[in-house]
Amino acid sequence: MTMQQEIDDPRLLAWAYLSKVVQGPCAPLTELIEKVGPQEAARAVRERDLSEYLGERTVARAHVDSAVEDLRALSEMGGRLVTPDDDEWPRWRMLAFDGLGHSRADGPPLALWVVGSRSLGELTERSISVVGTRAASGYGEHVTAEIAGDLALDGWTIVSGAAFGIDGAAHRAALGVGGLTIAVLACGVDRAYPAGHARLLRQISQNGLVVSEYPPGTTPAKHRFLARNRLVAALSDGVVVVEAGWRSGARNTATWGRRMSRPVMAVPGPVTSASSAGCNRMIREGEARLVARAVDVVEEAGPIGLADTEDDTVARDTDSLDGNALLVHEALPTRGFRSVPEVSVESGVPIAIVRSMLAQLELDGFAVPCQDGWMRSR
Amino acid sequence: MTMQQEIDDPRLLAWAYLSKVVQGPCAPLTELIEKVGPQEAARAVRERDLSEYLGERTVARAHVDSAVEDLRALSEMGGRLVTPDDDEWPRWRMLAFDGLGHSRADGPPLALWVVGSRSLGELTERSISVVGTRAASGYGEHVTAEIAGDLALDGWTIVSGAAFGIDGAAHRAALGVGGLTIAVLACGVDRAYPAGHARLLRQISQNGLVVSEYPPGTTPAKHRFLARNRLVAALSDGVVVVEAGWRSGARNTATWGRRMSRPVMAVPGPVTSASSAGCNRMIREGEARLVARAVDVVEEAGPIGLADTEDDTVARDTDSLDGNALLVHEALPTRGFRSVPEVSVESGVPIAIVRSMLAQLELDGFAVPCQDGWMRSR
Repeated sequence: MTMQQEIDDPRLLAWAYLSKVVQGPCAPLTELIEKVGPQEAARAVRERDLSEYLGERTVARAHVDSAVEDLRALSEMGGRLVTPDDDEWPRWRMLAFDGLGHSRADGPPLALWVVGSRSLGELTERSISVVGTRAASGYGEHVTAEIAGDLALDGWTIVSGAAFGIDGAAHRAALGVGGLTIAVLACGVDRAYPAGHARLLRQISQNGLVVSEYPPGTTPAKHRFLARNRLVAALSDGVVVVEAGWRSGARNTATWGRRMSRPVMAVPGPVTSASSAGCNRMIREGEARLVARAVDVVEEAGPIGLADTEDDTVARDTDSLDGNALLVHEALPTRGFRSVPEVSVESGVPIAIVRSMLAQLELDGFAVPCQDGWMRSR
Repeated sequence: MTMQQEIDDPRLLAWAYLSKVVQGPCAPLTELIEKVGPQEAARAVRERDLSEYLGERTVARAHVDSAVEDLRALSEMGGRLVTPDDDEWPRWRMLAFDGLGHSRADGPPLALWVVGSRSLGELTERSISVVGTRAASGYGEHVTAEIAGDLALDGWTIVSGAAFGIDGAAHRAALGVGGLTIAVLACGVDRAYPAGHARLLRQISQNGLVVSEYPPGTTPAKHRFLARNRLVAALSDGVVVVEAGWRSGARNTATWGRRMSRPVMAVPGPVTSASSAGCNRMIREGEARLVARAVDVVEEAGPIGLADTEDDTVARDTDSLDGNALLVHEALPTRGFRSVPEVSVESGVPIAIVRSMLAQLELDGFAVPCQDGWMRSR
């Protein structure tokens, strides 16, 4: 599924050039591109044929054109530049920005530098941001694992910022259940930040996506973290803060979520714990709704999946399954597929029985055959 | 201050008789008494000269008249029967019942059997209920001690139900800071229930009040706990639930509080703790507002005291005090008084300096002399 983009595509080179020039959101440039296309916009930037605001906003780096090198660096990592030209551009997610103002920080991303083979559009169709403090407690990490893991199992993509603490726990929980996750970075996707998460970021890019609106080589900076937080909120159906201080990046993400009309949720914690002070206060002040578990999140964020289920148990139609049918169904992945021998190994059910169970599961609407194997029906 | 009531007062005997006959709220009887007085109402009950409803409601015990014995038992404990005839009847608290229906459980108490020398009216002027599960966690007991202790220090009476767990911790916290507390029982005030709290109840009656709407000898029963919960809510400016299950007595108290337009508050806790499940869910469902500390409670329950103060610090006029003046002021009790030598011992400030500091504190409006010593000005 990797799209090895042509580095001599002049349109793509224009996007890459412009992304490097503005390094972050720039609503007037986005508008200009919508009007005249990326190549004409790039010409206007190069030749300083711009409105006063855009002139000022682009002057510092208009002369820098490393588009070929940036795209090559990305390509060598197996990445691609996703732009509004692409089918996988998460177009409807970008509607979130329509309600915002046009300040320097408020615009949609011009384009997104992406590593990972999945489609950005598909992965952000049903997604939840799970964010929080770097100084997570054992409680916070535990609850993050529970909630993010259950959401990922239910087919929600977990979006977070790859930071230490809650962010990392959220990504790991999704990976741990074979779910999907997106890391949105405040630096180039070629940078492992934090360095201690280099391996985690590699795993995320293999099973999900690592995304940035900054070209390769960009270093993390305070304003980029704030802009990144707005992307985390934009790319999801709701923001869950698990543990956070009152003045925290996670609360900033929550604020973006509220501005974008995303449901904002927080997990309560002991009033004696500094790590929970921000969450408790957000709940108290009405900035966030209290959530204790994945079903609470789904209740806020969307009517699909867990939402209609009962209290403590995740009751699905599959409750009717038992014995080998259940084992085989459980062995089918929510995303992707498994071959019959793989299902057999995973479920511990002999291949011949797996085949007959799969046939029955297909009839009952629980399993779907695909080219190379079987998947769960959604 | 103990009011040794006359056991041959026919009006009081009528109240005691009627209280024993109905054992709990009976709005139609309260109305009848308001109309014709307790003696005529007692005659009507004795002679079965009643409406159909009141006839049924009183028939089981109309022939039982242990008023003299009950009042004597109470008197021997240093108690008294407080009725709407008395100045200390918490008249405005009873307005809470005006908004409720007239079902069997909804009425105001007919009269209250009280042990303790304080005035019931005064003690319920500024009061907060702090309630919760018997199966309290260490966290719950700790937070109860913090919140109830701070509220009591600030002059709020802590009202609770004397049960094990959160209730007991709330009473103890108030006693521990030399504050005021009221235990409302679901049995006669002569009964120590739970037995393990016999000593605590004695301490409460010495420093606060033990109150019941049931005559001496009444045993605890399920419906009396529910009726007791309504009294706890009625006698306070707000209900704080520290830890509770979803179906719990504490949540019942909170429900009464809401019906009586009292602010209802809950302390959040770990989503992994069963003891906090009810509180977290009450907050989530909008049944209670999240509170983390005493100032949050005061913000909900009343504009006096801590409410206008800043975040973490209790800023009062006394912030202007320092050195010996502060030590001496801190050594003055909020209720009651201390002699100059006692203040000296408590503050560690020599007697001569205590005297001059007290004079200055009096001039500045921080201390008030009384017959046997000094107290803080309110």
